[in-house]
Amino acid sequence: MPYPRRLGPAAAWFAFLPLLLGTGYLYVAAQPVPAAPEAQAAATDPSSEIRTVLTAQQAAWNRGDIPAFLEGYWNSPELTFAGSDGIVRGYDGLLERYRKSYPDKAHMGELEFSQLEIRPLGSDSALVLGRWHLKRQMGDAGGVFSLVFHRLPVGWRIIHDHTSAQKLTE
Amino acid sequence: MPYPRRLGPAAAWFAFLPLLLGTGYLYVAAQPVPAAPEAQAAATDPSSEIRTVLTAQQAAWNRGDIPAFLEGYWNSPELTFAGSDGIVRGYDGLLERYRKSYPDKAHMGELEFSQLEIRPLGSDSALVLGRWHLKRQMGDAGGVFSLVFHRLPVGWRIIHDHTSAQKLTE
Repeated sequence: MPYPRRLGPAAAWFAFLPLLLGTGYLYVAAQPVPAAPEAQAAATDPSSEIRTVLTAQQAAWNRGDIPAFLEGYWNSPELTFAGSDGIVRGYDGLLERYRKSYPDKAHMGELEFSQLEIRPLGSDSALVLGRWHLKRQMGDAGGVFSLVFHRLPVGWRIIHDHTSAQKLTE
Repeated sequence: MPYPRRLGPAAAWFAFLPLLLGTGYLYVAAQPVPAAPEAQAAATDPSSEIRTVLTAQQAAWNRGDIPAFLEGYWNSPELTFAGSDGIVRGYDGLLERYRKSYPDKAHMGELEFSQLEIRPLGSDSALVLGRWHLKRQMGDAGGVFSLVFHRLPVGWRIIHDHTSAQKLTE
């Protein structure tokens, strides 16, 4: 097909370039922005990091180290802990509560977390349900907990804990 | 400026139309999608909608209507309720639990929620702490609760509830 001389074949292709580019933009705009696979995994599934925090808490408890156990929590006055005693506020308040309730290794016993269910809430928060059990010579204790984890600059930390004790049949 | 006869003035403008469209696509693609002001406010602060749900729950309870009270919860088998009896699962399971624990108006009493603290978790979830109190002739009951709300197509609903009873001094 002959092109008019005043534009010439090259100029005619140039005139269609914006059409190609325009189509390109449209295609780009229509695609969701893909995240890098690692970033995507971290954003959608914090389970592995959360399990690591809980495992570290369990280990700290079982060597009788309450301050290290507390490291799983948000170090903030806004940290909250709810239970049958009402609401305890702040990292320092929670440390004091644990120290009073568990004055020695005999009260602390051997802690086990089980039946963990981790549900992401958006990309930076997660709800974690689970059971806690203390094996103790003075009598076992246990129950269920609901933890709200949040992704902080230091990593995933508990920003709210609601723990219940259950009557144990054993 | 003369146009080559084979294209003509109208055809020449038409040849530049894709350029205009192309630039338009680029402009659209480069702008963050702005939300309507109401949508933005709702995304950052769900407090008003959540208070409305809790107020409706309180009103339903106080007219003895447990199914209407349940409407504040996510109607799903994945709904969870944690407490000193462990974890109750599903909307039907929770309805049964409430019906057993509160068989009549005397057990239900007059419900009041207080000291609500609403903390957004991302744009579609929120943590709500508060106190519940039942005024009853058979003896008052009360304690604290932690609710995880999620924005569903039907509106904000409770997807997880952890409730504790407290020993009341009155």
